[in-house]
Parts: sequence; C-alpha cells; structure tokens
Amino acid sequence: MNPIRSPGVTRRVMLSSLAMLPALAGTLAPKPALAQTATSGGLLSSWNDGPAKQAIFDFVRATIARSSPSYVFPEDRIAVFDQDGTLWVEQPMYTQVIYCLDRVPAVAAKKPELRNVEPFKTVLSGNREAIARLPMRDLEKILAATLSGMSVEEFNAEVKAWLETARHPRWNRPYTELIYQPMLELLRYLRDNAYKTYIVTGGGQDFVRVYAEKVYGIPPEQVVGTAEGTKFGYGKDGKPFLTKEPKLLLNDNNAGKPEGIHLMIGRRPYAAFGNSTGDRQMLEWTGAGAGARLKMLVLHDDAVREYAYGPAQGLPDSKVGTFTQALYDEAKKDGWTVISMKNDWRRIFAFE
Amino acid sequence: MNPIRSPGVTRRVMLSSLAMLPALAGTLAPKPALAQTATSGGLLSSWNDGPAKQAIFDFVRATIARSSPSYVFPEDRIAVFDQDGTLWVEQPMYTQVIYCLDRVPAVAAKKPELRNVEPFKTVLSGNREAIARLPMRDLEKILAATLSGMSVEEFNAEVKAWLETARHPRWNRPYTELIYQPMLELLRYLRDNAYKTYIVTGGGQDFVRVYAEKVYGIPPEQVVGTAEGTKFGYGKDGKPFLTKEPKLLLNDNNAGKPEGIHLMIGRRPYAAFGNSTGDRQMLEWTGAGAGARLKMLVLHDDAVREYAYGPAQGLPDSKVGTFTQALYDEAKKDGWTVISMKNDWRRIFAFE
Repeated sequence: MNPIRSPGVTRRVMLSSLAMLPALAGTLAPKPALAQTATSGGLLSSWNDGPAKQAIFDFVRATIARSSPSYVFPEDRIAVFDQDGTLWVEQPMYTQVIYCLDRVPAVAAKKPELRNVEPFKTVLSGNREAIARLPMRDLEKILAATLSGMSVEEFNAEVKAWLETARHPRWNRPYTELIYQPMLELLRYLRDNAYKTYIVTGGGQDFVRVYAEKVYGIPPEQVVGTAEGTKFGYGKDGKPFLTKEPKLLLNDNNAGKPEGIHLMIGRRPYAAFGNSTGDRQMLEWTGAGAGARLKMLVLHDDAVREYAYGPAQGLPDSKVGTFTQALYDEAKKDGWTVISMKNDWRRIFAFE
Repeated sequence: MNPIRSPGVTRRVMLSSLAMLPALAGTLAPKPALAQTATSGGLLSSWNDGPAKQAIFDFVRATIARSSPSYVFPEDRIAVFDQDGTLWVEQPMYTQVIYCLDRVPAVAAKKPELRNVEPFKTVLSGNREAIARLPMRDLEKILAATLSGMSVEEFNAEVKAWLETARHPRWNRPYTELIYQPMLELLRYLRDNAYKTYIVTGGGQDFVRVYAEKVYGIPPEQVVGTAEGTKFGYGKDGKPFLTKEPKLLLNDNNAGKPEGIHLMIGRRPYAAFGNSTGDRQMLEWTGAGAGARLKMLVLHDDAVREYAYGPAQGLPDSKVGTFTQALYDEAKKDGWTVISMKNDWRRIFAFE
C-alpha cells in the first residue's frame, strides 16, 4: 500500500515518520548504481522450505501442467504484486513521500517565490518537527508541486536522478537495493512459467515505472498504480508534449486495486501478493475466480533483519502497511498464505 | 476514431447514419463463427508493391538491425493502431453504436418501466427517422443504459453473444469478419519482429477487449480505449464483483490518445496507424520521438471494394472517420505515409 492520495494514511505516515528521517537532502550523496534484478543461487533459493514456498510450487504446477484440472493457458497467466512492503522496504515511510519532500528545494529553486510560501517554507527549513505538523492540505500542495506541472520526460529524469543519490537511513543504500530477494526470485520463477508479472501499487504509477524494469524486470506497461492525468500540448517549437496534471484518475488502493486491474489489465489475475489492508480487495478479487488461485500476504515479523510491525499476531502498530489481525484472520479463513519474513525467508536482501 | 463520448461526432453519426441501417435487431440471424486471425500467403501478401509497403519494410529493417543507427531494443518496440476505419470497417456507422441500439430491447426486457420512457420508447419503435432525431442527451442515456450497470462478466457475455449474431448490412457477415486483411498481416509482421501491438481506440475499451484477442491477436491488456470506471462490491453470497459505472475515466480520442498511451502503456510508440483527425495527436506524439518512427494513415478511397469518403483529396464527406484535407497535408509535410486502400491493398478482406 502507498497512500499518495489516501488522506488518512498519508497524514498518519507524514506526522509520525518525518522525525525518523536522518536527512531530506539525499542529493549530496555519491552516485551508486541501481540494483540489478539478477539473482544468485537456484529456484527460490532465498526461501526456506515450508508452507509458503510449497504453496508457490503447488500453484505453479497446478496451473502449468496440461493434464491438471486447474491448467491455465499461458496468455491468461497474470500475477499481480503490491510494491511497498511486498517487493521493497516501506519503513520508516513510503519512498515516494520521501522523494516528494526531497524535491521541494529543486521546485523552490525554479520558483523562488515559493521560498516564503507555506508549506514550502517549512519544508525548506529542515525543521522536521514543524514538517510533521503540516496539515493535510499543505502536504497535498507538496505532492502536487513535486508530482505534476512538468513534462513526463522531465519527471522521469528527476526521479531517476534522485534514485541514484538518495539513501535509506538504516542501510545507507539506494532504495532500489532494498528489494526483497525472495520476491525477485518469485517474480522470475513466475515469468519463467509464462506468467506476466504486474505491479499493482498504491504508489504513483509514473514514479514506479521509472525503475520497475531495471529493478524488478517489469516494464512500464505492467505497472498499475495511483495515476494522475496528463495534458497533451505543443511547445514553442511546435513539438507535442505531455504535461503531468494534478488530476486523479485512479486511486489504486483498497477497492481501487481490482478496479485498476480491470482498467489496465482487463482480466482477473491468478496470483496476487500484498502485505496490508490496502491489498485485501485485490486478493479477494483474485481468489473469487475459478480454479487454482494463489493469494499471499507478507507479514513483517523480523525486527532483526528488517522490521516487525502491524498489529496482526500482536506485532507493534505501524504507520505504514497496516496488516491488521482481521486481515490475518481472513487470510487463514479463506486459505490465503501468510509469508513470515522471519521463518520463510532465508535471505531478505541481495546484499546480505 | 470512435465517438462513444465525443458528443459532436456522435451526434453527427447518429443523426445521419441510422436511416442507412437495414435492421437494428441482429439477434435473429444465424450464428457464424468469429473471424480468425490466420492469414494466407506470404509476408504482407495482401499489399501491393509501392511506397506504403516499402515504408513498412524500411521501418522494420531500420529498427531491428543491430547495426542500424535507428536500432530499437525489443522491449521498447511498441506499435499502436486505431481500430475503426484502420483495422475494420467503420461505415455506415461505428459498430459499437449499433451494438448499443441493438441492446435496448434486452435492457427494456429487464426493466419494463423503460418501455414507455424516452428515448427507449423511440428506439423500441424501430422508427429509424425518429431515432435519428433523438437529441444528444437521449443518446447518452442509451449509451449509459447499455454500457453500464452490469458486472464486467455480464457485459462481456452480452457483447460476445451480439457479435455472434449481428451482421453488417452490406456484406451480411459478422462485424468481426470485416477486418482489413492487410492490417492483420501488418500486425503479425510487426509482432514477428518483437513489436508489441496495441489498439488505441476511441471506442469502448471493454467492448473491444471482448474480441480483440480472437480477431486481432491482441490481448485485453493491450487494448486502450475510451474507458469508464468500475465499482468494486460484494454480492449477497459475499463474493466480490465489479460493476460497470457510467463514469468517464478516459476519452481516448484526439489529445486523449497520447494521454491514454501514457496512462496505459507508459512509453512512446515507434509506429502508429490511424485514419482520421482523431488519430492526429497520436501520430504527432509518435513522430516526435527520436530515431525511426512509422506514421501511417489509411485513406478510404475505394468505393468499389469498401467505401470512399473523405474529404481529403476531394472524397465525399462522411459521417465517420473524418480524414480532412488538412490532415492529408500534415501527413505529406511531416513524412507520414498515406495508405491508399485502392492502390496499396491487393485484397481488403480475408473472405474475398
């Protein structure tokens, strides 16, 4: 889940996570390369043997064997993955929100009149306690100013440049290295069996598309996310261009996930992966189809190697990726598989 | 171009074309099979030798040869096709509009109270002159009543059933057989060279997705069209479902085509094919990219084998697919290729 346009959660994330950020200006850090999608080792080698790994193997075998009653034609093999907390780290806050705050100095440099206008003045002050107190409508101004108003090419270049310099506060590594190695292996395993892998994220569609191909092996057209409109126009040279507009087309969270899947893919997935209540409807929609359907939720229960949060199973409450006990109970009741990061993943990151 | 939500054109089409329809109730006709995508003969064998065929060969060679300065990586090879008038016949009116009118009896059977309510009463009367006089807001009621309010599965089944029985008035064949054979060969030729082929249509995205895979070899997720929202909900049995809503998300005509391409594909195409002013911005957007880009427009100049309509090159004015002289002039000026159906296509339909 990622709350670019989900006011309640966005506010909660903003208010409580900003103080944890070591720095908003990642632009001074050196230039590391983006993470590679290459995996080492054999088939799902970063997964421990157990019910989660077994559920994956069982599902794939059931849907690819011609003799199976659950056989699925290759063209129908669709698998959808939430991103934040499912494919990469979402703590201490959603990466895209950090991006938006980090972009404020650059936006203010182009529009100096913003320096003395709230909420930009507060963000530029670097006073994180004050930033955390900004009201929702101010935060939306920051999102609008940093995610729209530029051409789609300019936006792509801005995100790309940021990803090359920004570092995660805990690991001091690029965010694109904080990808879960077991999930990279799962993506590849499904693709090797003719599954088309999609990201279906509450995060910004254009944001994720910038790095999804390099990081996950997922091309732009297979990234579904919270999407805002663009406006076609002509430059002074007569050349056409598209400008990003602050006009919401799809809020790809909760019920918006199956709605977004219908809009962008047009068929029901056979496998769905998430980690929070924002993914519930996507898993329900996937599970309501006939035949074998794989529904999996990542449970963040490993405080040592990653984080442990979410109130399911008595884990501490969190500001992002809400895995409630009710979601856990629904998973158990309906035969969804809960992936324990602690028990099911032998390795979490490629750099370990 | 297809004007599902393009009031001006829709009205023009509706007012003047209805009288040309031999029958609105195709449901009594026998059940023919959907057209196959299979082609006979060799490479682009339905194309005559000439500048159009040559432009296609030149473009493909320039973008697939590793040594070419215009080489395009396979994952970037995107080709977009308008549908109505580019891939299939759009005369005497857009097929989907015929579908909507044909659906009115079924809608009224489920909701008998509509029988005495305009505009349904007029449509049910079969009086085509009266139908042609219906004001725009009445026509929109017909579109809303026939394209929304049902589950996505119900809609798919309704369209599928209609396609199996409805016949084109001139050829007395299913609409899905009125596909241009040269374009089927072109689609296949591009795919054989690793191009991902997309439909980018002003027609309804959900409508075209029903038959695009079978007819064109284009899967649902590669159909971009005028799109309305869906709403996620739960049935009495607790099962989740998606209901089609009369809420416009994307008007995929004119500037909406490049905007839709950005939303649904996320990268600029290398080749674009259209036949009307509704495709102009899509071809401009495609052509504004670096390297080799193929931009082609189908000119309907063959009254004997198909239709001749215009007004480019002095062809008679038409109610659909407006190919203006200004568009023709832009094509010539900017190096787009105009395909003359009369001269460039040896064969138009597979059944010829």
